[in-house]
Amino acid sequence: MSDTTGKEVTRRGFITRVGQGLVAANLAGSLLKNASAQLTVPDPPGKKLGWAIVGLGSLSIHQILPAFAKCEKSKVVAFVSGHPDKANKLALRYGVSPKNIYNYQNYDSIKDNPDVDIIYIVLPNGMHAEYTVRGFQAGKHVLCEKPMANTAAECQQMIDAAQRANRKLMIAYRCRYEPYNREAIRIAQSKELGPTQMIIADTGFNIGDPNQWRLNRKLAGGGSLMDIGIYALNASRYLSGEEPTEVNAMTYTSPGDPRFKEVEEHINFQLGFPSGLLANCTSSYGYFPQSHYRVLGTEGRIEMDPATWYTGLRMRLSRRNTIEEREFPEVDHFASEMDHMSDCVMQNKEPLTPGEEGLRDLKIMMKIYEAAQSRQTIKL
Amino acid sequence: MSDTTGKEVTRRGFITRVGQGLVAANLAGSLLKNASAQLTVPDPPGKKLGWAIVGLGSLSIHQILPAFAKCEKSKVVAFVSGHPDKANKLALRYGVSPKNIYNYQNYDSIKDNPDVDIIYIVLPNGMHAEYTVRGFQAGKHVLCEKPMANTAAECQQMIDAAQRANRKLMIAYRCRYEPYNREAIRIAQSKELGPTQMIIADTGFNIGDPNQWRLNRKLAGGGSLMDIGIYALNASRYLSGEEPTEVNAMTYTSPGDPRFKEVEEHINFQLGFPSGLLANCTSSYGYFPQSHYRVLGTEGRIEMDPATWYTGLRMRLSRRNTIEEREFPEVDHFASEMDHMSDCVMQNKEPLTPGEEGLRDLKIMMKIYEAAQSRQTIKL
Repeated sequence: MSDTTGKEVTRRGFITRVGQGLVAANLAGSLLKNASAQLTVPDPPGKKLGWAIVGLGSLSIHQILPAFAKCEKSKVVAFVSGHPDKANKLALRYGVSPKNIYNYQNYDSIKDNPDVDIIYIVLPNGMHAEYTVRGFQAGKHVLCEKPMANTAAECQQMIDAAQRANRKLMIAYRCRYEPYNREAIRIAQSKELGPTQMIIADTGFNIGDPNQWRLNRKLAGGGSLMDIGIYALNASRYLSGEEPTEVNAMTYTSPGDPRFKEVEEHINFQLGFPSGLLANCTSSYGYFPQSHYRVLGTEGRIEMDPATWYTGLRMRLSRRNTIEEREFPEVDHFASEMDHMSDCVMQNKEPLTPGEEGLRDLKIMMKIYEAAQSRQTIKL
Repeated sequence: MSDTTGKEVTRRGFITRVGQGLVAANLAGSLLKNASAQLTVPDPPGKKLGWAIVGLGSLSIHQILPAFAKCEKSKVVAFVSGHPDKANKLALRYGVSPKNIYNYQNYDSIKDNPDVDIIYIVLPNGMHAEYTVRGFQAGKHVLCEKPMANTAAECQQMIDAAQRANRKLMIAYRCRYEPYNREAIRIAQSKELGPTQMIIADTGFNIGDPNQWRLNRKLAGGGSLMDIGIYALNASRYLSGEEPTEVNAMTYTSPGDPRFKEVEEHINFQLGFPSGLLANCTSSYGYFPQSHYRVLGTEGRIEMDPATWYTGLRMRLSRRNTIEEREFPEVDHFASEMDHMSDCVMQNKEPLTPGEEGLRDLKIMMKIYEAAQSRQTIKL
């Protein structure tokens, strides 16, 4: 695999199971080789870049902050939070200097802090644009969580601000930075299983607390599609390597459910691509957690289930008379994507998932909503 | 389970695997119990009914004729075929009397043959209506392959002919007569996994010989939807226990492919049901063979893969922290459905899948085509 993740995850490092038996293996050897490869690779520019985390919610606390321990090119050096108690406590745990704790009022003064190279926006969707633009105005590079913003117009403002500031903008599509999804892309586009005929992608979960920001239209921009269905959409695009040209959709939201006063519960969509490839996708805030996709070639299929969770991904390849389970050493998605961003900044490269990638999903999601509303197939 | 299949397939007869380990088991005991139950159940009216098979193509030769050996209430006694050599050869193998071999010209004289109680129509779809109606005019009961016919009007003629003749009409939806799909229906409708939120169903294969009748519009009525997508549609209906009220669709057919001069290759469809349940389905004559569905409740999911092939069905139930593989002794779908039909005739009961069931699918399939064509969501 190429090294755009900033880690060498070699194809030698995977385990192959054919049918019921463990075949290729030599797992211990592969893992050792992999580990020693990481130990002997020098940090290219001699140091780690400094990151500021904006927003200290569940994702930051449970995934992003612990991921820095696995980073080779990224270190956490600052927090931006509306909760000083939480920020102070986390600062002690992660060795962040008290002088590097900001709030939303003094956020712009981060421009004077040379410790901070990159800002990671982990706020509710409706705040992404403002805090990204202010980050660029402070002269920093920005990694922003998905979905990029609530509207395509906001996405464009973010892209423009990055250009004006001559800084990098990346959207946190973490699945592009871990080996299972990368291998699925490689296989799908290699035509090893014949040309891809169809992609089926299903992402959703049964959402809890009715008071969370994800269920607030102003903060979330929409419902399941914006938060979780975007994985099915993004996968359809990265697996096909094409941009859809038409879209269809059907939606349903349980009336009277206190969770869904402002945003949609389920929204299913169909995409047509220029090659004739079709995608059939579901998105839900109501069903049992599911993250699943299938790539159907003429001669075989890729099945990923789960496909996009943080851990425990599984890939199965089916061909005539064989089913192969393909395994890779697990990679921390957040560490991998942050190191990619650091690497892009250090080497002045464009990120694999730049602002334009986030904008494309936003434009399509708006058309999915429009298709569901108008009950018509819409050309893109 | 209820005994509408005419076989006692008890819930005690299944094996349960939780996680990686084999748990419940006592398989040998279960199978013995099952076998002895079958041996000690008397044939209710003392004899097997006589069947005539109309059309001796691949399905008849490879599936239906061998299935009679596993029937308890059905025996093959006659053939109707345009190929006397083939019919004579099969007659020798299956002990069919030479006097009971008919062709399409003298088919109507089957009315004078008291050996024949039930006619099984295994012809191309476009011939179902004519040969079913002629079967009723000959005073016989009719089991007809799916799809029921090329058009809803033909289906109605078949239903009317059955009523006029006071004979039974059943459509060969074999998945309703085997334990995996029956268990999936039971679980989905029991709400064991919470109320069903969504059904995802995908059925298709990469069709071969461009000269086969399935690719001829007059004989097949349509493409992948009529032949294989109907399984996804039918499953959405039997798993939900509801009738869809709206439909959406998207289709693509490879230009210049010699297989698809007359019928569609892929057609994906979305269904909305009265409870708010949504179904997202794919149908293909172009992708690697797939027969898969998922029923998503709020608290768990049923996954069947394969879901509707003749053999080798697999069911996986996922709940929070557990994945259970549920297994049943394999049942011959054709033997089971034929015995159900014989039982209905003997006991003057309505079949589980009467003509009206075939008509419903036909009407919806016509609306799926219309939705794809008009690029609009259509109310049913």
